[in-house]
Amino acid sequence: MSEVLRSYIETYASTTLTDAEFELVMNAFTFKRLRRKQYLLQEGDVCKYYGFILKGAMRQYSVDLKGTEYVIHLGLEESWIGDRESFFMLTPSQYNIDAWEDTDLLLITNEDFQRLLDTIPAVVTMMRVIDQRYYISTQRRLHSSIAYTARERYEELVNTQPELIQRFPQQMIASYLGISPETLSRIRRQSIEK
Amino acid sequence: MSEVLRSYIETYASTTLTDAEFELVMNAFTFKRLRRKQYLLQEGDVCKYYGFILKGAMRQYSVDLKGTEYVIHLGLEESWIGDRESFFMLTPSQYNIDAWEDTDLLLITNEDFQRLLDTIPAVVTMMRVIDQRYYISTQRRLHSSIAYTARERYEELVNTQPELIQRFPQQMIASYLGISPETLSRIRRQSIEK
Repeated sequence: MSEVLRSYIETYASTTLTDAEFELVMNAFTFKRLRRKQYLLQEGDVCKYYGFILKGAMRQYSVDLKGTEYVIHLGLEESWIGDRESFFMLTPSQYNIDAWEDTDLLLITNEDFQRLLDTIPAVVTMMRVIDQRYYISTQRRLHSSIAYTARERYEELVNTQPELIQRFPQQMIASYLGISPETLSRIRRQSIEK
Repeated sequence: MSEVLRSYIETYASTTLTDAEFELVMNAFTFKRLRRKQYLLQEGDVCKYYGFILKGAMRQYSVDLKGTEYVIHLGLEESWIGDRESFFMLTPSQYNIDAWEDTDLLLITNEDFQRLLDTIPAVVTMMRVIDQRYYISTQRRLHSSIAYTARERYEELVNTQPELIQRFPQQMIASYLGISPETLSRIRRQSIEK
């Protein structure tokens, strides 16, 4: 399964890793299996590990005093999960991260991650490309949140990330879009009727 | 004035530039003065230049079919301005970027920027640090947009970026926060009465 990470890094960095480099990468990561509803991070803790999802589905969310959950991120296979602010700044997180499906992860600590950045140029390039994409997709999501109606936001998600709609329940999708579950139900009913 | 950019890069990269490196940096940039309301980028064009703001105030926004403006970014001194997606992907932009105050900029093309990344390690490090901060601040802004009330969003802006409220008019601040100008007026009146 570690080949998944190797091919991920090589694709994003547009280069190949030497076997020695790949050994350094694999020594830096630890395999972890989370059952559904188990936590990778709980609010108030420092995010010690960043995770690369091999298989499964995870979510990152905050909870307010009334118990309402606000989903900031939904993650599937071959993507990263963690609270980056807490992970890099070593500050307590305001987020929870848990497994929505049984999930297999490769975990890395901040220290090991910095060591990889210092020793393997492909990892630096991979990070630059990931950050670039993140920058662009987040700008789009922010723009949607201020300029689009609830219906337009839902339709954009259907077009760009349909797998999220298939894997996560409706109330999580609503929260991720920043709209109420009732509004999302109405939009979906109307889409089906059309 | 170019010393401002030098000290900016050195601060973000936590290192000093050699004079030869700084000469490469300065040769890559062109000085540009925009009067208030002049454009750096118009919707539908490719964003040819990324700008470093030396002095002034700029905004990035989209306009819908009814003419409503949606402000995605407000920029002041010693920060970058440009549509990153369009700049790096060479795609037409959906945004306008114009000067809200008379503004002095240092401009760079994509090609020159890539050359700096390839030749000056401090520029790579600077980008990594900027992206890191952007990642964190955008995650916060996204979280606010789904989890916070209009009042909480305004108060967060007052606490974290009060200079934006001083430099830009109320309707732009409202758009930036994704709330209506009427709601922002009401919140501000209530804040003053308290």
